[in-house]
Amino acid sequence: MRNGHAYLNHSAQQLTIRMIEDASRLGILHSRGSLGEQLIDAGANCQGGIEAGLRIIEICLGGLGTVSTVMNNDPWPYALTVRSSQPVLACLASQYAGWNLSHEEYFAMGSGPARALARVEPLFQEIDYREPDAKASVVILETAEPPPPAVVDKVSKATGIAPDGLTFIYAPTQSLTGAVQIVGRVLEVAMHKAHDLGFALNDIVDGIGTAPIPAPHPDFLTAMGRTNDAIIYGGTVQLFVKGDANAARQLAAQLPSHTSHDHGQPFADTFKKFKGDFYAIDPRLFSPARVIVTAIETGDTFRNGSIHQKMLERSLG
Amino acid sequence: MRNGHAYLNHSAQQLTIRMIEDASRLGILHSRGSLGEQLIDAGANCQGGIEAGLRIIEICLGGLGTVSTVMNNDPWPYALTVRSSQPVLACLASQYAGWNLSHEEYFAMGSGPARALARVEPLFQEIDYREPDAKASVVILETAEPPPPAVVDKVSKATGIAPDGLTFIYAPTQSLTGAVQIVGRVLEVAMHKAHDLGFALNDIVDGIGTAPIPAPHPDFLTAMGRTNDAIIYGGTVQLFVKGDANAARQLAAQLPSHTSHDHGQPFADTFKKFKGDFYAIDPRLFSPARVIVTAIETGDTFRNGSIHQKMLERSLG
Amino acid sequence: MRNGHAYLNHSAQQLTIRMIEDASRLGILHSRGSLGEQLIDAGANCQGGIEAGLRIIEICLGGLGTVSTVMNNDPWPYALTVRSSQPVLACLASQYAGWNLSHEEYFAMGSGPARALARVEPLFQEIDYREPDAKASVVILETAEPPPPAVVDKVSKATGIAPDGLTFIYAPTQSLTGAVQIVGRVLEVAMHKAHDLGFALNDIVDGIGTAPIPAPHPDFLTAMGRTNDAIIYGGTVQLFVKGDANAARQLAAQLPSHTSHDHGQPFADTFKKFKGDFYAIDPRLFSPARVIVTAIETGDTFRNGSIHQKMLERSLG
Repeated sequence: MRNGHAYLNHSAQQLTIRMIEDASRLGILHSRGSLGEQLIDAGANCQGGIEAGLRIIEICLGGLGTVSTVMNNDPWPYALTVRSSQPVLACLASQYAGWNLSHEEYFAMGSGPARALARVEPLFQEIDYREPDAKASVVILETAEPPPPAVVDKVSKATGIAPDGLTFIYAPTQSLTGAVQIVGRVLEVAMHKAHDLGFALNDIVDGIGTAPIPAPHPDFLTAMGRTNDAIIYGGTVQLFVKGDANAARQLAAQLPSHTSHDHGQPFADTFKKFKGDFYAIDPRLFSPARVIVTAIETGDTFRNGSIHQKMLERSLG
Repeated sequence: MRNGHAYLNHSAQQLTIRMIEDASRLGILHSRGSLGEQLIDAGANCQGGIEAGLRIIEICLGGLGTVSTVMNNDPWPYALTVRSSQPVLACLASQYAGWNLSHEEYFAMGSGPARALARVEPLFQEIDYREPDAKASVVILETAEPPPPAVVDKVSKATGIAPDGLTFIYAPTQSLTGAVQIVGRVLEVAMHKAHDLGFALNDIVDGIGTAPIPAPHPDFLTAMGRTNDAIIYGGTVQLFVKGDANAARQLAAQLPSHTSHDHGQPFADTFKKFKGDFYAIDPRLFSPARVIVTAIETGDTFRNGSIHQKMLERSLG
Repeated sequence: MRNGHAYLNHSAQQLTIRMIEDASRLGILHSRGSLGEQLIDAGANCQGGIEAGLRIIEICLGGLGTVSTVMNNDPWPYALTVRSSQPVLACLASQYAGWNLSHEEYFAMGSGPARALARVEPLFQEIDYREPDAKASVVILETAEPPPPAVVDKVSKATGIAPDGLTFIYAPTQSLTGAVQIVGRVLEVAMHKAHDLGFALNDIVDGIGTAPIPAPHPDFLTAMGRTNDAIIYGGTVQLFVKGDANAARQLAAQLPSHTSHDHGQPFADTFKKFKGDFYAIDPRLFSPARVIVTAIETGDTFRNGSIHQKMLERSLG
């Protein structure tokens, strides 16, 4: 595998060390949990902020992607652009929140490079990535509480990393850190839907995506709705793919959020309609509003979808 | 205090050392003054430039903020975006040019992290920041001349830093370095007016701002007018605040520059009208054209003001 | 010379070492050639990508400039912004592809900081730059093949650097790396035309430029056409110049691509019209679509040209 040594956990660990060094300026709290694991509270009992959210995004991408703030359209002039020349590893093997770490009362989907060591999700049957010498690992959690010992233990066993080599970074959806960190998934969401659509992952060789920074909201449902709407109605992604033009055309045709029959209302309303059953929602909804697919081997570019300004205004406030 | 160890002077010193190492490529001059103080001429008897101005901005923010160039609207496509998740410390305790360092013929308002050691300004009664072990400090001066020994001595005594631990960075308003460095105050100006309006400083938890890079001008008054107009008629700022929605709504209502009765003509004309008496100008004028205030605890966002394209064209040339 | 110690080759070498360390994540291949020279295949027999292209741009600028991705207009939302406060050294002494390194079947124009050691081009009669202690050097080649030993030997003799101190970075025009790397020349193209127009190089003190990232194309001619059109019909450059306003006005009047009689059709068509004779094409065509010239000593700004959206749509696909 060409990128076997672009190690997700090793890279993320360097960024995590720097995040801890900068804890004060990031407005975050660093501590050790009962099993010796490192805990970074990035927005629950501390302020956090945009910078903390940006740092989490780069850690969550396993160090194989970058994020920057850019100027966007009114009325949300500030947006994030996420970029990776290793989008499968950065977004799917690492950033995707696909590891169920719920335990009793604690509900959490884990993201970050620890997933690529644990390899417990079916997705990893298609991602031929190994990191043999990882000595440390990071899990990102969209929660207000640190993981209970049973979850730390589960992660330790699954990754083969002793608890004192693990770092858990958490921030609730309602925090500013959380809002930033979640819309930083705009490229990942496109990658994941491309996978759902059956597009060959190894054919996606580069990607870049942008979404506005939504205002956080104290209500979980509203906060979650806004971060989703920032992507579903305000996100742009360009993917660079290998293979023939037909596959690229078809990907562009199917990828944008408007191809979903649940498109057209704020995400929070859709969520309520399905009584909070996330998995009842049409999975085609989870993707950016506007998609550009460039077939690098044929030179063709296919565009589909557009920013849904009115829905953004209605949802983002 | 949550951010007690995000030390302004320590962080700024690291950036200053790098600036001196890069003196040649930045087109700046480094020397030692008569008391052993370091002097960086960033645009008086040297060329300086955009990169030198950007470096000064990050030093002036005490290392607690970042700046990048972004694409903006015609006819000034290039703009700066300044961002800080510690806006009170970065902008008010450090970047604000509030320390009167004039002496005889030498007129200068000092900015930079040295202010947070000296704490001679009334503003510091409201900023509970201490940096007990500072060994070096930096002052930024919007001047064409280095500070005379009496000013160096004054800064040394007020900060408790020996002269050879002090660095004075200076560039005149008329230089390209100066133009960049001054519009890099777009977020600080909003912070300062928020304080003037009585908004609780500790409630401002994050901020981001953008203003176009104006053309420098050899005439001091015109140059100063342009940098002010770039912010007053061309600046955008988003503040993220704690507290209730009413306070945020009121802040947005009062913050933009158009709320001033001196709004509506180029700043240089206003300055002339008041015969150069800066303090006779309505202080409400000194703020960005367009303001967005997001109340993170309620989820509300309030917008006010807009970019004044015609005035920009008239002033910026 | 004020910037004598902002050493192009030394700076580029630091970036090259980092590029090699990051080979896996950049999707590039590092090896040694038969004379001990370092070879970086950045897009021929490997994937490369946007990040690899961005790294090459900063190396090609001799470390005296920076590049970032920015949001641009539809339908090509992603663009590059290149910036340098040493535009003569970064763009002309280093980035310009002016060194003919063709040998028998191998056709290549060399760019990068090695040119400033070799000084074999007439252009160097006007650039008073020396780097006495260079121990390593870099050549960037827009090719699908590494240089043959005769070319390595030629570069070694001309630069005075032993082959094992030389690095050759190559990527074909048709690769994504190549597309990015070439549009990263948007500022250089303006600098070069300014020189052709007789504008005093030392009067250009700062510069910034932007061009959209075009889709690569497997056909060499189409790929080359797109990268040229991205600049000719989609590029923006702002130059900051010393000297009087008339010289700046005249530069703005003559600099944009529309001043060429070969303007108005896709570059590939023009190339075909002249049967592939690059030097038969009107040299005034090679410049950005939109130009802003700011005379920093007089405060005047002159604008000319505009983005040619329809031609971009026709060419970039």
